[in-house]
Formats: sequence, structure tokens, C-alpha cells
Amino acid sequence: MPVIHRAIPALRRLRLSNTAFQQQSRLQPRPAQVLRPASQIVQLRHQHNNTEKAEASTSAGGADHSPQEQPDRPQSKIKYTSESYPNLKRDSRFKEVTADDVKFFRGLLGEGSAVLDGVTQKTGEEDFEAYNADWMRKYRGQCRLVLKPETTEHVSKILKYCNDNLLAVTPQGGNTGLVGGSVPVFDEIVLSLSKLNTVRSFDDVSGVLVADAGVILQQADDYVAQHNHIFPLDLGAKGTCQIGANVATNAGGLRLLRYGSMHGNILGLEVVLPDGTVMDDLGTLRKNNTGYDLKQLFIGAEGTIGVITAISILCPQRSPAVNVAYFGLESYEKVQEAFKEAKKQLSEILSAFELMDHQSQDLYRQASGAKLPLENDYPFYCLIETSGSNTDHDSEKLNNFLEHVMGEEIVQDGVVAQDETQLQSLWACREGISEAGQHFGGVYKYDLSIPLGQLYDLVIETRERFQKNGLMGDSDDFPVKEVIGYGHMGDSNLHLNVATRRYDKEVEKAIEPWVYEWVSKRNGSISAEHGLGLAKKEFIGYSRSETMIALMKGVKGLYDPNGIMNPYKYI
Amino acid sequence: MPVIHRAIPALRRLRLSNTAFQQQSRLQPRPAQVLRPASQIVQLRHQHNNTEKAEASTSAGGADHSPQEQPDRPQSKIKYTSESYPNLKRDSRFKEVTADDVKFFRGLLGEGSAVLDGVTQKTGEEDFEAYNADWMRKYRGQCRLVLKPETTEHVSKILKYCNDNLLAVTPQGGNTGLVGGSVPVFDEIVLSLSKLNTVRSFDDVSGVLVADAGVILQQADDYVAQHNHIFPLDLGAKGTCQIGANVATNAGGLRLLRYGSMHGNILGLEVVLPDGTVMDDLGTLRKNNTGYDLKQLFIGAEGTIGVITAISILCPQRSPAVNVAYFGLESYEKVQEAFKEAKKQLSEILSAFELMDHQSQDLYRQASGAKLPLENDYPFYCLIETSGSNTDHDSEKLNNFLEHVMGEEIVQDGVVAQDETQLQSLWACREGISEAGQHFGGVYKYDLSIPLGQLYDLVIETRERFQKNGLMGDSDDFPVKEVIGYGHMGDSNLHLNVATRRYDKEVEKAIEPWVYEWVSKRNGSISAEHGLGLAKKEFIGYSRSETMIALMKGVKGLYDPNGIMNPYKYI
Repeated sequence: MPVIHRAIPALRRLRLSNTAFQQQSRLQPRPAQVLRPASQIVQLRHQHNNTEKAEASTSAGGADHSPQEQPDRPQSKIKYTSESYPNLKRDSRFKEVTADDVKFFRGLLGEGSAVLDGVTQKTGEEDFEAYNADWMRKYRGQCRLVLKPETTEHVSKILKYCNDNLLAVTPQGGNTGLVGGSVPVFDEIVLSLSKLNTVRSFDDVSGVLVADAGVILQQADDYVAQHNHIFPLDLGAKGTCQIGANVATNAGGLRLLRYGSMHGNILGLEVVLPDGTVMDDLGTLRKNNTGYDLKQLFIGAEGTIGVITAISILCPQRSPAVNVAYFGLESYEKVQEAFKEAKKQLSEILSAFELMDHQSQDLYRQASGAKLPLENDYPFYCLIETSGSNTDHDSEKLNNFLEHVMGEEIVQDGVVAQDETQLQSLWACREGISEAGQHFGGVYKYDLSIPLGQLYDLVIETRERFQKNGLMGDSDDFPVKEVIGYGHMGDSNLHLNVATRRYDKEVEKAIEPWVYEWVSKRNGSISAEHGLGLAKKEFIGYSRSETMIALMKGVKGLYDPNGIMNPYKYI
Repeated sequence: MPVIHRAIPALRRLRLSNTAFQQQSRLQPRPAQVLRPASQIVQLRHQHNNTEKAEASTSAGGADHSPQEQPDRPQSKIKYTSESYPNLKRDSRFKEVTADDVKFFRGLLGEGSAVLDGVTQKTGEEDFEAYNADWMRKYRGQCRLVLKPETTEHVSKILKYCNDNLLAVTPQGGNTGLVGGSVPVFDEIVLSLSKLNTVRSFDDVSGVLVADAGVILQQADDYVAQHNHIFPLDLGAKGTCQIGANVATNAGGLRLLRYGSMHGNILGLEVVLPDGTVMDDLGTLRKNNTGYDLKQLFIGAEGTIGVITAISILCPQRSPAVNVAYFGLESYEKVQEAFKEAKKQLSEILSAFELMDHQSQDLYRQASGAKLPLENDYPFYCLIETSGSNTDHDSEKLNNFLEHVMGEEIVQDGVVAQDETQLQSLWACREGISEAGQHFGGVYKYDLSIPLGQLYDLVIETRERFQKNGLMGDSDDFPVKEVIGYGHMGDSNLHLNVATRRYDKEVEKAIEPWVYEWVSKRNGSISAEHGLGLAKKEFIGYSRSETMIALMKGVKGLYDPNGIMNPYKYI
């Protein structure tokens, strides 16, 4: 029988335990739940998300599926993408950059730092490393010219010149992408948006922010936070990634369950098309039914049909109160019931509903040495976050919800964070899984969307697969240590991880392309939120029909007939 | 000093008055606020919205701006659109429907009611009236063939045949549009979606509904209501309009402030392109970053590039509690402050924030004979609705909000509905304005999006314009009785109405195209939610640049190179 939770009177009758908490965080019980301003949780979560970022790093499929290098190992030189993908050949239609081209760009952008020139100047490869290589150290291009326009007009003139002269271009934001989309493959010119970084306007009545594409996400959120608003997107790479590129990759992130997708929140875009045309669709209106909503095409187009130079986005009111609860459940059916109840009872304040299976939590415990929040083991765990405008109301709703789900035996046991430290510990149980997976060797990671009812079946079947083929076991004889499943339940977004002890080609063979076929049969998505880039280009057929791909190619042909924009990638 | 509101203890100290209410609704004061299930409010609002629907009817611009006929006058025959728009000529490229064509369609759809044939059969014009004429009695086409496919395959075969034979097609849903988009202009074949009306699936865990395009909006909402969900769109025409056409027209409606636009809520579409290709993008996933999001193009395309045959839409949890408050304010600046405070304090439960000026309420009072809720007059009034999961919490939030805005003198006076009847009376003050405008003669109506800070300036300037040119006054000598402003403050959506005593060409001259120029200068939209159709086709230049229009024409050319889809309209 679990220990009664003594700190929260409303929960006395429940089998809530926070002894694990007390030991873990060495805190005295407090008389009531302490809820914190949302601005703090963002900071906190941001730290967590450095691991979330790492988590996503190897989900990118592609040619190299060997277990990832550990960050603390000495780093070898990154292979050129052209070596990792030997089938990729440079498109001979594209012109190589010449001294004349550099002269044109210098004339446009000046002699300062806006042009990084390795064509006519003696520069080392290392000067281009930040633009050629991705942060996962998985992709490496061979660009020798980086342009950093300061105005939309610059972008227009650059693209027109490149289009007229068949110079290939890779637009680049913060270069925090996970699928190799933001770095060149061969000698494409890198068009960095970093100098286009001004907030143009914010209307604190409507909540509409208009800002240049190169504004850092964290800065955009800090800006609207001063006016008690929140940028409707939150990501691990927040301190580096740029809002224009967030839109270009249709970033999902942590706030999607609550605030919805970019397609709903983006009110306007300014986009430069490959021929230099400036698409002036930077409205600030919530309603505007005057013709095709063209801007939508550029959301998630990964820079393949134009360059987003500015965005207009609807920012919601910032929630002053945040609560987090963690609980154990007996089955995936109970998880679904709990999710239904949470949607019903927490409705307008529910901001996260995260799923973690027993295996993922056990791996986290083993790897981190942390004690788990609950005393007993359960097949499944969930983490719930609420964000609302009234602390007392939110606590009451959450307590009522917990009483109900425990009374109905949907949930077996649970805890509610009572201060910042506990809240951090609970989120760590979810966000520490990624690192835990890599702790014992390497990990194969898949970022998938699957209809909710079938979401966990994939984890069970993957596990059975490795049990049957003799690749998984407790001793070091087996390459696979564990198969774990976790993710954003609220978005039907599963992270399937196969934690391995060492690289073994048989493991890869056993899971691919089987996993993509499995997802395809259930009308799922092989890339929930990370996009296609270079890594998943070849797998799009598992998520899209030939008809859809042909129609997509029609759009590419319409806007980029010369194919100069971010070539070799996407579709 | 207004009377103290005695029924709500929390409001005792406020200058709230509900005496008007008591007289109006003849109710005894009740001990506490009675909040109602959302399902009831929908029914209620639906009744109201028959007037909202009427309100929108003449906002459609176009060639005929004469004051609308009153519904109770004997109805004359509706003019053919070709007579009202003499500049429109039938495109001679389009083939006329022949007996052979009818034979093909009969072979495909059978001998039953799926083909309404006036080509080879002797039928009266009245048999086609429901398909040729819009419900506003403003547009009338000359179609002699109506097809009612029962499957997506039917639609595909019909469109392929029409495309191959250059037969023009007008897709038609419930034919409740406001801009003449859903009726033919000449002899276009009407493709009715009414027999494609099955709910395909509903997942009550994820809240995703998949349904045929021809399902009636009310039926869709009733269906998900059984599972405690809500269709994220609510409209006056709910009992007649179809969900596929709602998507095709990017309908806004009453729930936009809370649940966002179609672009965020639509998860998938099945669309038949003019060449018969079925675009199978009917996913149910919240996250799917695998290529261009093509379905977005068809949201708001008004049937000009394809026919939506099925939709997949995310339905939120239904709110069990609904509250309504009505208050008076001294200036538009105070209205903006109140809106900011409502967003801040009511945040996650705010579901409507409606603006009404003094003139609109006075006109409503004169026309309806109803007593207004507040004793004193104020330059502005607002109606606030909250929807949430917890009745007590919502009431407390609303009361706290009202205490604050009255304490700070942002709001001068206010009432909160205590039962269904009072709630209905409050909504009537907002929704009765439309009918009131027409009560004294006719009305010119404009449905506009304007940045919030400048939204009311247009009403003031329009009023000044009519005062200066001597067209507006209290006696019958003046054609203009009043200029009123009201609308969806939460969506920056203004309804500007000029209530007239009689038709006078000078009135029209004084306001057009001045009003469109005014909106254009402020980057507003000449059509917030009603679309372009035939009525606003010629005015799109006031809301979109030549570049944007050229790009839109590129999309039209890509999907409908023969131009057979809904010709003569849109862009």
C-alpha cells in the first residue's frame, strides 16, 4: 500500500506517494502546492531540452544508422555527406561559384562580415565548419561562400542572381535541424538569415508579433513575455534556432497540444521566391478570405521553394500558473482512458500529456541513478502539465482529476510537484530518457506519428521481434539491451528507441524498413515533426502516395523551376 | 447610480444592474448563476444566427448595392446574374451540355435522383431554382444539369469527363454562401455534394472526426457532441451548410477566437482535382512533416481548383459551462483595455468578445422594442462569453474580471446572465443588430478585417462623411438614418452598416470604393470571412497586391489549366 501524500489535504484519501520525492529532492513537505510563473518553467524546460534535442538527433534515419557517438568521446572529423551518401552526385547543371559572382555579392552586401568568401580568399575549412556541418556531426557540405543579407531586398537580389546564373542555394537559420536540411550537400551557397533579426512590431491587444526570420526563438519569446504573451512554440534548440526556420520546418515542439500548429498561428509571411519575387503576404489579420492562402505552402517547405524573410504570428496570453503531475498505470488502455479524462476534466488548462513505458523509466533509473517518483513499478507512466490563469483553480482541477482517475482505478498511483525542484525532477523522468537510451552503447531512434489507439502496439511488436530473433537479452551476448517507447501522447507522437550495447548490422536489418512499413500500414507518419531534409527524403513513400508526391513536385516546379533551392533534399 | 445586482453575492459591491433584465425576461432573481451545458447554447445561438445570416447577406458587395428586399415583402423573380452583371460573358470555350453528356452521367450515377436533367427532359425552371439561385435571392444561374455523386469515385469520373470535354462545373454544398460562390453564373453543371454524407469515423481519444464533405454542420456537431466533443466551427447556417463547403470557404464563425481557424484544425482532406485525380491527404495525425502541406491550398479556395470530398478535423472537448456578460464602456480605448484584460484574466476560458457601438444598440432598441440590459447609455458595449470545464471556476474568474475592470473604471456598468433566458437576451442585443439595420429601409453592409487599434476609426470616419455631405440626418429628408459599427472584436472583424431609409445612388457613391481604399491603406481585408465568390472578385486588388494575385493565378493554372472549376469567380 503506497504511502499517503501528506502535503496536500485534498489528496489525503488518495494513494499518492511523495516519499520518493522527499528523498530525491531533500525537501521538507510544504503546506500547499507551489505553482510557478510560466516564464520560469520555460527556462527550466529549456535546460531539459538539451537532452530532448540529443534524443532527436539520431531519429533522422538516412544512410548512417550506426549508434551515435557519445558527446564525451573524442570527436573525429565529420564525414562529407557526399561520402556518407555515395549515390548522391552533384547536379552538373549548377554553376560553380566564380570570382565574378563573389564580386556581385560583395557589391550588394559590402566588404564587411556579410560575405564569407572561400572562393577568392584564402580561408581554412574550419571557417566554414559552422555553416557546412550540422550540430549532430552527421552531415557536412562543401560550401565556400556564405551570404548574410541584412534586408529582404538583399535576399531578393541574391536569389534572382542565383536563379539567373543557376547557382544552388541552401537557406540556413540557426542550423539546429535534425535531418540535414539546413546544411549544403555539395558547394551550394549558404544563405544565412542571421542578420535579418529585428522585431518589427508587437500589438499587445491582438497579440500579433511581426518579426524578421532571423530572430532567435528565445529572443522572440522573451520579447512577447514582457507583454505577458507567449510565443506559441517551445523547443529544445530555443536559444539558437530562428523563428523563420521554425516556420520553414513547421516545428512542433512542446506547446502544440495547447496552442496548435504553425498553420493556425501564422497570420502572415514575407517570402522571397527563387526568381527574386517578394511575396508580400505579411498580414496581421486573423481573418482574411481573399484568395488562396499561399503562405501555408511555405510552412514546412524546408526552404525548397523560397526563403521566408519575416513572419507574423499570433501569440497567446502567457499562463501565470503551471502544475505537473506524474502517475503510474496498469495498461496502455488505462493510459488512453487517463488521456480522455484529462482532456475532459483539465480541458482548457492541459498543456502536456506525456507517455513513458516502464522500460523507459527503468532505463532512466539505471542510467541516471535517480530514484523514480513512485515506490512501486507500473507498466506505464504519464506526466501531465497544466497551464492556466488561476493557480487555485488549476490545482483544484488537477486534484479533482487525480481523485477521479485514482478512484476509478484508471491510475494506480501518482504525485504532484510541490515546488520548482520537484517539478524539475518529474520532467527529468520524461526528458532524461533520451540520454538514458544512449548510456549503454548506442540507440536507434524513430520519431513517428501513429493513430493513438495503435501507438503502443509498435513498441510491443518491436520488442517481440527482437526477442524472437535472439538479438535482445539481459547479458552482454545480446546487442539489443531494451526497446523503449515514450513521447507526446497528446500529439500521437511516439519516440521508439532501440537501446543497444554495440553496433550490429543485424539490428538495423531487423528493424528497417519494417518499422516504416508498419507505420505506413496504419496511415502514420515517418516524420512527425522533424521534417524530411536529406535524411528522410528516400522514405517519404512510406507516408505519402505517389499521387501526393507527384502533386508536391508540381508545386516545386511551379516556384523553383530551376531547382536551385536546397537541392538534393525533401522530395 | 445603477442598481446593485442582488443575485450574485460576489458582485454586490459592483455597479451591476439586472433590473432591465428582470423586466425584460420576467424572471425572479435566482440565488446563484445558472450555467448551462454548451449543447444548449448552440441550439440557442443557432436560432439567433438566422439573423446573423441575414446580416451577412448584403455585405457581399458586387454590382447590386441597392438596399436589400425585406423578407416579408412579396418576392419578385430573381434577376439572372448575367443581367445584373452585364459585363460578364459566357466563356465560349466551354461546351454546352448535350444529350450524350447526360447519357454518360446517367450511366455513371444511375436513373434515380442523382441526376436532375433539364437538357433531355422537360423540366420547369423552378425545378432548378434551388441550385441556380442563392438564398439571398441576389444571384441566379442558368444550369440545366445537376449531378449528385454518391462516392468519391463518382466525383472523380465526373470531373475527368468534364475536364476532357470542357464542361464547366460549379461545386455546391448547402448553398448558404454570401458572395454568390456556390451557384452557377451561366450553364455550368452543378455538382452537389449532398449525397456524400456519411461520418466515416470518430476517435473519442484523439477527438479526430473523419466525414464526407456533404455532412451537414449541425449533424457533424451533434455526432461529436454524443462523445462530449465540439465541432470547432459554429455558424448561423449550421442546419443547412455542409462541412466540406465550410472548409472550401474557410468559414470563420463564432468559435474562431477560442478554437482557431480551419488551417489549424483540419488534419486531412480528400480532394478530387479537375482532371479526376484523387488527392488522398485524409490523414488523422496532428503531426506529419513529410512534404508540402497541399491540403492547405484547398481551404478557402471556394471550389476553384478541386472538389473536397471528405475532411479530417480535430474536435476539442466540449465545455460543460457557459457564461455571458454584457457591459457599457466610455470609449473605444476602454474597449481595447477591456479586451486586453479579458484575454489576461479569462485567458483559457474566453470564447467570445463582441463589440457593439451605442448607435447599433439604439437601433436595435428602436427596431425590436426590447429594453437594453443597462439603465444608462454608453458610447460602447461589449458582450463576453466564457466556456470552460468547471462552472464555479468560470464564474469566479468572470466575477474577478468584472470587479477589476469596474474598479479600474475600464467598464462603467455591466450584467451577467443568470439563466438561459437572460443569456439569450444578452446575445440578442448583439445578434439582433443585423435585422435592426434593415428595419427602417435598407442597409449597406461591409464585413471587414481591420487592425484592432484602428478598427473603430472607420465607423467614425464613415459617419463624418455622411454628416458632411448632408446625406445623414434625423428626419425623413435624409436617406441615411445611421452608421453603426459592431462585430467580432476578438477576431478584429468589423461589421460596418449604413442603415438607410430608401435607396439613393448618392449613398453608394459616397461610400464606395472609399471604404475599400480605407481598409486597403490599413492592410485590412475587404472580406474577413465570407470569401470572394462572384461578389468580391473585382475588389480583391484592395486586399492583395498584384504580385499575390499573379501567384494565385499560378496555382489556379497548375490545378485547373482548363479553368472549368467554378468559373467567372474568385480571382
